[in-house]
Amino acid sequence: MTGARPITFLSDYGADDEFAGVCRAVISRIAPEAAVIDLTHGIARHDLRQGSAVLANALPYTAPGVHLAVVDPGVGTERRAVALALVEGGRVLVGPDNGLLWRACERFGGVSEAVDVSRSPARLEPVSATFHGRDVFAPVAALLALGEPLSSLGERIDPAGLIRFARREPEVEGGRRVRAAVAYADRFGNAALDLSAAEAERAGLRAGERVRARAGTQTAEGVYARTFAEVPAGGLLLYRDSYDNLALAVNQASAVELFAIEPGDDVVLEPG
Amino acid sequence: MTGARPITFLSDYGADDEFAGVCRAVISRIAPEAAVIDLTHGIARHDLRQGSAVLANALPYTAPGVHLAVVDPGVGTERRAVALALVEGGRVLVGPDNGLLWRACERFGGVSEAVDVSRSPARLEPVSATFHGRDVFAPVAALLALGEPLSSLGERIDPAGLIRFARREPEVEGGRRVRAAVAYADRFGNAALDLSAAEAERAGLRAGERVRARAGTQTAEGVYARTFAEVPAGGLLLYRDSYDNLALAVNQASAVELFAIEPGDDVVLEPG
Amino acid sequence: MTGARPITFLSDYGADDEFAGVCRAVISRIAPEAAVIDLTHGIARHDLRQGSAVLANALPYTAPGVHLAVVDPGVGTERRAVALALVEGGRVLVGPDNGLLWRACERFGGVSEAVDVSRSPARLEPVSATFHGRDVFAPVAALLALGEPLSSLGERIDPAGLIRFARREPEVEGGRRVRAAVAYADRFGNAALDLSAAEAERAGLRAGERVRARAGTQTAEGVYARTFAEVPAGGLLLYRDSYDNLALAVNQASAVELFAIEPGDDVVLEPG
Repeated sequence: MTGARPITFLSDYGADDEFAGVCRAVISRIAPEAAVIDLTHGIARHDLRQGSAVLANALPYTAPGVHLAVVDPGVGTERRAVALALVEGGRVLVGPDNGLLWRACERFGGVSEAVDVSRSPARLEPVSATFHGRDVFAPVAALLALGEPLSSLGERIDPAGLIRFARREPEVEGGRRVRAAVAYADRFGNAALDLSAAEAERAGLRAGERVRARAGTQTAEGVYARTFAEVPAGGLLLYRDSYDNLALAVNQASAVELFAIEPGDDVVLEPG
Repeated sequence: MTGARPITFLSDYGADDEFAGVCRAVISRIAPEAAVIDLTHGIARHDLRQGSAVLANALPYTAPGVHLAVVDPGVGTERRAVALALVEGGRVLVGPDNGLLWRACERFGGVSEAVDVSRSPARLEPVSATFHGRDVFAPVAALLALGEPLSSLGERIDPAGLIRFARREPEVEGGRRVRAAVAYADRFGNAALDLSAAEAERAGLRAGERVRARAGTQTAEGVYARTFAEVPAGGLLLYRDSYDNLALAVNQASAVELFAIEPGDDVVLEPG
Repeated sequence: MTGARPITFLSDYGADDEFAGVCRAVISRIAPEAAVIDLTHGIARHDLRQGSAVLANALPYTAPGVHLAVVDPGVGTERRAVALALVEGGRVLVGPDNGLLWRACERFGGVSEAVDVSRSPARLEPVSATFHGRDVFAPVAALLALGEPLSSLGERIDPAGLIRFARREPEVEGGRRVRAAVAYADRFGNAALDLSAAEAERAGLRAGERVRARAGTQTAEGVYARTFAEVPAGGLLLYRDSYDNLALAVNQASAVELFAIEPGDDVVLEPG
């Protein structure tokens, strides 16, 4: 164990280009002792909905430390760059102030201290117009990992003014019908919903029972199952995913393709 | 150097989703000093044949330590989760008991001690139905890296009862014709065979000579070459790959496409 | 902090196969204390132009140390394997002598000492014909990270004999028209040019002004902009990328597709 705090890193930089790698290099140069744990760089480009949901889901499994997240369609514009200390767990988030960090903040009791690091003394000069991951966020995260206080890395701002990108709350429509948003899809074509297992329970959906799902012009029937093995190949299932949210899947095929859905679309579920 | 043993990590989680990253985070939380070396997360989904061959090929190049491998089509069913101490080299394997680990076990003299970690005290509670990499395998691997004995992490089981997924042995058919299975393909379209260079030699194939290959309805002639440069662009070659197995390739193109083959298919080779 | 120097690692091995992972394992086995920072393994296969440009761009952001780079279409032929100490910064490069390392050498004042490591005592025996990343380059890099002197790892050679793969210099054609080569494309379809912002300035291109771009049979008009937000969706822009080179982009679409260009192609720019 070293004196530096660990840094987790999530982005939409992808695996093909050197963007994530150069950020890791910048961190390693400033804080060679800090462990960098890549959560994923496979967030769909500029997809704040997916990025914010995945970050919030993953964070409880990480060691408290510095959590760097970059999905940044507004890079080079006036959007702020921020570092946020959370109320619970001693965690600090670093990223653009565009809503990406919000769901993770909510999960740890909100923000206790916020600084705008857009003109941080930690920045690499000259700051490019397009790569703040390298020039702003990575050096700020590295210095936080070394124990630098938030207040020395930017100007204090009011947490109440942070951009919020909350999940869309599910709506119960007439009895046991519930409408929820697609949060994101994984590479297997499973669609995670902004609907927790507890919320589904309250809306009257029961594990083990049949379920009808509608999205766009498609309707399909399946099972609210515990495992994929409970439905035949090609069969639809609703299941509790590993973050306790419900997800739509087709055994050995793709729910995303079946319904032609994408993040942000609505899905309506009811007992089948 | 730290007190913790290194952990290698192989899976079919892919580079797009956060699955591998969350497992790394879980390990880092429990065993922050343990180095995690990602071998690959690009095993084709649920492909035990590829996963077991790549794991067995890669392991001799790694430092002895803990070797985490997750290709787990049966997650959530009754398949066991296991940790296996190998006879040679002081290595411990962690993964599902579905055959994935078997070829690696054989390569290091077999299994000296086996425990079922399905209900390990190391598990993250509540254990999800679909993500045992995070909830079972990663925490068990992390504690093994810290020096926890196998016996404290699960119930001892008889190694003789482990699921085996042996490679398909090549068959010599009438003289110098040999039939072998495709073990896996790489991203360049090269098809690695379950046929070692020594076995090919015994079957009468000679480096530098012409060779005829048949798979499915396709037959093609080429050279048993040492390097790609020995055949023209578009030419077929059989070569000894870096793990001393034979592989089929097409210079600057794809043997997988030429023969329309996939892992598990048969290839018949004979002098051309 | 440990006694070992950090190692950066760039290759065209991709994210799907285990090639990069096995190299990491070899390094970890020899030099467990050395940090390995993956810059990228997504260089297009055998693309020396892209690999050499990305390596030269990324290196100034990394801590001085050992820089391993493998894009190696000639593996198994007579091309040399080399380790090169650079004049500035105390950096050492390791890779094939095929031009890949050249632009990075130029950026740090050239080569002060060069050794041919093709038959290095550090090699893993037997050396395969196709995987020198594992058998030659990774072990040499690991020993350099541990402080082994260059001279003990290979035979001294004359740096003047190294293969050079210089960038194509831009040409000013009649007044304010400049011709430059496409260096590489990123996954978003942006085409980085072998044309620095300073060179474009000298050729008469001005940020904020309109620009006309021609490549192959396509001509399009756009803006020399600072941010993507300055042009409408689908609009062409020329911008200064994060390495101070100019790049062609289409807002929310692909310049590579618009012009049907690839690395090495010419682009002609003039005020629009």
